Amino acid sequence: MKELEKLYDRIIQRVNINLRELEFDVKPFVWTLIPPEQMSKFYAFYGISPDHPLSLQFRHCGLAGSYFLGRCSLTNSLLYKSDIRGDELKKKGDIFHFKNFKISVSKDEEIEIEDSALIKTLVHNYSHDPETPEKFFIKDTVSTHYANIHGSPSEGCFLGPFATIDLTTMHDCVIGSFSYVQAGEINHLKIKPGTIWVRNPGQFNFLYRHPVEKLHQYIYFTPGNQPQGLLIDFMEDRKEAFQRIFDLVHVDHGVEVPKSASLDRYAVTKPTTTISENVLVAQRAFIQNSFLGRGANAQENCFIINSHLEGYDITAHGAKIIEADMGRNVFVGFNSFLRGRPNCRLTIGKESIVMPHTIIDSRKPLSIPAGHIVWGMIQDQNDLEANSLPINTFSKIENRFSKGDLYFEGSGQAFVSAFQNRIQHILEANGALFDGSKNMGHAQKNQNISFNTIQPYPKGDLKGLYPTIVIQP
Amino acid sequence: MKELEKLYDRIIQRVNINLRELEFDVKPFVWTLIPPEQMSKFYAFYGISPDHPLSLQFRHCGLAGSYFLGRCSLTNSLLYKSDIRGDELKKKGDIFHFKNFKISVSKDEEIEIEDSALIKTLVHNYSHDPETPEKFFIKDTVSTHYANIHGSPSEGCFLGPFATIDLTTMHDCVIGSFSYVQAGEINHLKIKPGTIWVRNPGQFNFLYRHPVEKLHQYIYFTPGNQPQGLLIDFMEDRKEAFQRIFDLVHVDHGVEVPKSASLDRYAVTKPTTTISENVLVAQRAFIQNSFLGRGANAQENCFIINSHLEGYDITAHGAKIIEADMGRNVFVGFNSFLRGRPNCRLTIGKESIVMPHTIIDSRKPLSIPAGHIVWGMIQDQNDLEANSLPINTFSKIENRFSKGDLYFEGSGQAFVSAFQNRIQHILEANGALFDGSKNMGHAQKNQNISFNTIQPYPKGDLKGLYPTIVIQP
Repeated sequence: MKELEKLYDRIIQRVNINLRELEFDVKPFVWTLIPPEQMSKFYAFYGISPDHPLSLQFRHCGLAGSYFLGRCSLTNSLLYKSDIRGDELKKKGDIFHFKNFKISVSKDEEIEIEDSALIKTLVHNYSHDPETPEKFFIKDTVSTHYANIHGSPSEGCFLGPFATIDLTTMHDCVIGSFSYVQAGEINHLKIKPGTIWVRNPGQFNFLYRHPVEKLHQYIYFTPGNQPQGLLIDFMEDRKEAFQRIFDLVHVDHGVEVPKSASLDRYAVTKPTTTISENVLVAQRAFIQNSFLGRGANAQENCFIINSHLEGYDITAHGAKIIEADMGRNVFVGFNSFLRGRPNCRLTIGKESIVMPHTIIDSRKPLSIPAGHIVWGMIQDQNDLEANSLPINTFSKIENRFSKGDLYFEGSGQAFVSAFQNRIQHILEANGALFDGSKNMGHAQKNQNISFNTIQPYPKGDLKGLYPTIVIQP
Repeated sequence: MKELEKLYDRIIQRVNINLRELEFDVKPFVWTLIPPEQMSKFYAFYGISPDHPLSLQFRHCGLAGSYFLGRCSLTNSLLYKSDIRGDELKKKGDIFHFKNFKISVSKDEEIEIEDSALIKTLVHNYSHDPETPEKFFIKDTVSTHYANIHGSPSEGCFLGPFATIDLTTMHDCVIGSFSYVQAGEINHLKIKPGTIWVRNPGQFNFLYRHPVEKLHQYIYFTPGNQPQGLLIDFMEDRKEAFQRIFDLVHVDHGVEVPKSASLDRYAVTKPTTTISENVLVAQRAFIQNSFLGRGANAQENCFIINSHLEGYDITAHGAKIIEADMGRNVFVGFNSFLRGRPNCRLTIGKESIVMPHTIIDSRKPLSIPAGHIVWGMIQDQNDLEANSLPINTFSKIENRFSKGDLYFEGSGQAFVSAFQNRIQHILEANGALFDGSKNMGHAQKNQNISFNTIQPYPKGDLKGLYPTIVIQP
């Protein structure tokens, strides 16, 4: 066995040891997901920016097609087309507020990835764990296609395709396909596919599970096979457009980009696309024939096609918006799939919140009124009525609420406020509120990023692995 | 002043301190040669190969457009489109023969560049200095366009455009434009432009100087100006073809390359070009409408245009061959410029030796018979007769010989043997003699090289400088 396979085998063993109580064997799920040939085929790249400390360490890793920004340290890990975005890490001297604690940050925070395999995974934000404020660790963990590890230190875990773990520390957990978990801290749990779980202990608990049969049309993952389903097909169909972007040293997108906006060099845009002031388009985003109004954004793995985003719309990591008209300040959560059709478009009124991992896929025109919150699986008007509520109504829940497959307990007001604060934070962080001098965010700062590429050993026992590379200021 | 200019200023000061005895001020010659804007415009790149130890260290350097292979350590230096080719460095355990000494090499040799500025310079081969077998150093040195530093440790020196210093350690020297020096060790010398000097103390001394007026048509270098002349124009006219090669991540040359040959990814080929078995085409070589027979090679900055190379022809670093027909085993030395014209081609018979820095540029057909040695400035048949000799005749010189502007003393036999041994060594090193299993050289090994790119800080005080980068196995 060559070095790369040995390393992969070792990573899988470590995860399995962590998951032994759950009797979960990662190997049959993922062994074929990293074909060694692919690992030597793609370069990796990292950003250099005056706004983020430069400190990258790669030791005994495969990094094919992956991207790094900010302080990252990787050891004995395999990354395939993953994004490690350390542009929101805490800086030395910051004060990190956690409940009643004010934790002073003693050194620049670092993303530390060890003995892990991440496939097409996004790692972003910062450690929300008060026990480890300077280290956002990912250890003994395997994650699969389009998973998001967002502000969530992880040890001994497995994430299925399109799983998102958000602001949550997790130990020894299995997160099923298309599940979204935001729960503070979780241990030794096996989360079933399609679970949407948002919990703030003592405040609220939001729990929904996608109907399994319907979910399988979109994402289906079984041992020994690549992930399948409509969501995967959708991404695969648009893969070639990205190839061109990665094959050129200098890319001219042919789109006008205002001075206050940024269009990543590794994004794809197709005609006729409009980028307004304060817009942020991240790497691996795909924008086709769409209007992005002032302060709108499209994060990693977002697809916005034949759509109109009025302004200040957030399209979180992995969300897709097709044939849709979005009012101002609409929030679309992680990995949501919103699809209208040419003659039956999807309309979402202003200030609505589309919960993470929502699927809206209707063959008739569908309109979500302004100020609504929607979740779950919505394929027609009936589903919409079962899986939505005016935000005002939701805020009035005081104890317990159940509708369709949703189970909620706690304070609706606290839940809605948490989301609204988060939305405000994202707009600020992304630079949507930049006024020409104040409120700079990613949209403005990303203009200063340049990209470096690194490649693996091309042949021999180490083929597909990268040399040890240390980059400091 | 920004950091890059400060660094350049500091390098120039160090060279000037070394050259104070010669009363030579480097600054007016070179200050405008490194425009800061250019330094942030181009990426640098390095090779990864199983055949050479990987160890690269860059600290506080500008590296625009430069290439690195093998063990290199750079500190406080500026390189512009230079090639640092450490693929012939000694390896740990090698025995380095120097006269009666057998020197065992205690660790892998390293190219160490410190406080130096190299512009479009080639650094190759290994330290021939028995005093420093494990370190090929270049310190407090400034070199300019198309200079070659070949197996020549250097301290406190200045090299003019197209200067070559070969197998010679030098301290505190000024090497004039288009001068070639191979002299073992030199100190505190100021070599005039167009000097060709090959000396082996106690054995022979070959000394020629190009006629100044004629040389100035080809290369002319004055303080405050870019180098000028036909040689520079010739390179500039073909610059754009290279731009395309550098702007693509994957290059398809569209030329058939036999398994035993190698065509560098950063070379330019134009139709209709034939690459035969065991051919080596290095980075920055330019081949147009030419035939490269078995075992022929084209090194860095070589241009071969509308020409036929029969086989086992060596085109050393920087040599140009235009509208010419070369017999087998013709050696063309560094930076030679051999130009026939469409209706009056240049013919060079087999086993001839064209001395380094020879200019043959005739407006009438010119034919150099087989087995001749030629040197200097040759613009017509009369020049050819003045500046050539059958190798056999040259070998018979026993004491002293003078012809045209050439002055020779010592043993012609020793001189010819030294060249012939060198030619044999180059053919071996380049893989021209590969038989399918034995005698592998660069032509075969270079197929295993992959390239990584690195880029500088894009903005701010450090613009144009590179971060600290350390790369190890």
